[in-house]
Amino acid sequence: MISVDEAIRRILENLPPPVTEKVDYRSAHGRVLAESLSATGDVPPFNKSAVDGYALRAADAAAVPVELRCTGESRAGAGRGSPLEPGEAVAIMTGAPVPDGADAVQMIEKTRRSADGARAAILKEVRPGENIILAGSEASAGEVVLESGRYVGPAEVAILAMFGHRQVTVFRKPRVALVATGDELVETDQAPGPGQIRNSNAPSVAAQLRQLGLEAEYLGITRDDKAQLRGSILEGLRRDVLIVTGGVSVGAYDFVEEILREAGLEVIFSGVAIRPGKPTVFARQGDRLVFGLPGNPISTFVSFELFVRPALERICGFASAGLFRVRGRLLLGVKHKAERTSFIPARLSWLPDGWAINPLRWKGSSDIIGFSQSNALLVLPQDRQAIAEGEQVEVLLLPDFWQRATR
Amino acid sequence: MISVDEAIRRILENLPPPVTEKVDYRSAHGRVLAESLSATGDVPPFNKSAVDGYALRAADAAAVPVELRCTGESRAGAGRGSPLEPGEAVAIMTGAPVPDGADAVQMIEKTRRSADGARAAILKEVRPGENIILAGSEASAGEVVLESGRYVGPAEVAILAMFGHRQVTVFRKPRVALVATGDELVETDQAPGPGQIRNSNAPSVAAQLRQLGLEAEYLGITRDDKAQLRGSILEGLRRDVLIVTGGVSVGAYDFVEEILREAGLEVIFSGVAIRPGKPTVFARQGDRLVFGLPGNPISTFVSFELFVRPALERICGFASAGLFRVRGRLLLGVKHKAERTSFIPARLSWLPDGWAINPLRWKGSSDIIGFSQSNALLVLPQDRQAIAEGEQVEVLLLPDFWQRATR
Repeated sequence: MISVDEAIRRILENLPPPVTEKVDYRSAHGRVLAESLSATGDVPPFNKSAVDGYALRAADAAAVPVELRCTGESRAGAGRGSPLEPGEAVAIMTGAPVPDGADAVQMIEKTRRSADGARAAILKEVRPGENIILAGSEASAGEVVLESGRYVGPAEVAILAMFGHRQVTVFRKPRVALVATGDELVETDQAPGPGQIRNSNAPSVAAQLRQLGLEAEYLGITRDDKAQLRGSILEGLRRDVLIVTGGVSVGAYDFVEEILREAGLEVIFSGVAIRPGKPTVFARQGDRLVFGLPGNPISTFVSFELFVRPALERICGFASAGLFRVRGRLLLGVKHKAERTSFIPARLSWLPDGWAINPLRWKGSSDIIGFSQSNALLVLPQDRQAIAEGEQVEVLLLPDFWQRATR
Repeated sequence: MISVDEAIRRILENLPPPVTEKVDYRSAHGRVLAESLSATGDVPPFNKSAVDGYALRAADAAAVPVELRCTGESRAGAGRGSPLEPGEAVAIMTGAPVPDGADAVQMIEKTRRSADGARAAILKEVRPGENIILAGSEASAGEVVLESGRYVGPAEVAILAMFGHRQVTVFRKPRVALVATGDELVETDQAPGPGQIRNSNAPSVAAQLRQLGLEAEYLGITRDDKAQLRGSILEGLRRDVLIVTGGVSVGAYDFVEEILREAGLEVIFSGVAIRPGKPTVFARQGDRLVFGLPGNPISTFVSFELFVRPALERICGFASAGLFRVRGRLLLGVKHKAERTSFIPARLSWLPDGWAINPLRWKGSSDIIGFSQSNALLVLPQDRQAIAEGEQVEVLLLPDFWQRATR
């Protein structure tokens, strides 16, 4: 059995080459740019006032208070107007162009307008350049403002909008198919018979995919029947990534690995030294990837986060992949069988002195109810049997950590 | 001017009473439950095998190795079959019901089947109860498994699916309208004329709303014209929350606050001791809320995160609201005018000894290009003029911190 790190390494080595597509800039939100984008003009496009106030010549306000003649106003959205002469001031709005001749803006709070509006008293001196944002000072036309590989969040959407980049090239989302296996499974809208349970893995994997901005194409429940399972797997292989839950253990009806081999796929690994999630299978056929996840709800959840997430993130163009890792202080000692790396549900909180980790009581890899109280996964290394209260340990933050934590 | 904390306190005091709705359990993902949900049956519903192996009487395997008669098999999805007699073993699959009479399961790796399949050698002893998950041990029928107020992530979706809770009550999403103001603005698909710029605030606020799972209803750009702006505001007031960008400063054409007062709204505050974002306005009319955000791109962004986000999160049912806060070590000394609390764009990284904060170079509150490199906001308190390299300071993590950080 290979280690978790080795398994992730092999997955990342076996990813298909990136595919890109053009999308509307608003749909680029949550995606990664596959092209570098340049400023289509100077930012700001003109010398711009940073405040509401009066544009003037700083030399005219060297000794204050001083009264200047008000010769007009510069509004946002207007042209620059006529040049400003010595002794003159022009009322100016935030974002409006500074008229030629003016080299500073005094903010309105430090001025007083005469009753007839003809004069403005400047009450405080102002330095040349003060409150003016020079044309091109934030970006010059032609300069790269967003590099290929950049994640597109709200600020990047603003930049794309600002420069009129309405169609942008991003990494394509993979199409993901999802197959649940198990004679014991019925769909959520069915009543389980004796020995049966409702399928909860397909809905939770679909939700995990949604956290990555991906929609699952659910191919339904497949019985523990080789022919039927082969049919579903071949159907799933028409997408970029196929996720199968269940059927990967060592039982007499666990056919997934066998079918993948018979169908000519290269099984990169089957079995990882991890708890839960040991029987995880990873296979490929050309650019198509298959993940076989163990069918216990928590095994499915954890192996998705550890193995499927980094693959999908990389395919989506992210340079970094996988859950965010920090270290924190263990609030309660924990033990495990040290032959495999264990991932234990935990509640992580930020305290004034750092992260504190509270391992949760849970009842093994099918106890999704106990597990659902967690917001992080505590990592118990393969070479340690027990970790004492107060020790510093590694912990992985779940993708919806903000929503699951007390802020 | 009130402090940031006081502003947030007043916002949270003035929220409408919660509204709930029934949705399909899959659409509940990302929402907060407004009802407690109970187990509709025991989990597991029967004594279940945790492994692939042989169900047996532990007493029969007290001395090992021992050969037991194989009398059948228990497959996942089948009934319990006939009771097991002393000296017998039944092949059993993970998740399958343990037959009556058996009190333990030995895993397949610690057994050997005879060539004719009639007998199984048990190679290691097994304790009574070992590898059996007792009926009802994870949840008993009727027990609350998800309390009202719980965030619904993938694990909760699994629990809802498991119990067949296909329609669940969650807090309703508010309908949010968005108005951009400013004579200088043109839409993204238009070419700016002299003194004009493309509107980048509406797209970025829409993206910030999308991070909260909300769709903005964009009412377009309004000129700095009182009648037109009044029309847009009255139209926006037909939604739960109206966000106006721009028009809240002290300039001659900043009409938002005036119009809100004339329209009979209660202006809860206008002006917060914060940089950027000072002129932020918050008003209400009954259950309808209005946020007037300053129009500079970064002011808009920051005041949304600080003031609008907590309101929307609470309306969506979250007990905690606002960006996640941690403390970290400043990698570079910073100064500011101490009269207001400053929020400075920063890059935050997790190092082996804790969080490290790198304040970014930026060129003021319109420099969204510089700002876009950040993944966090460094907080400079009102009462400190300078903070030295190496000091511990507070920092707010942006909602897409995972995507923006090196993992």
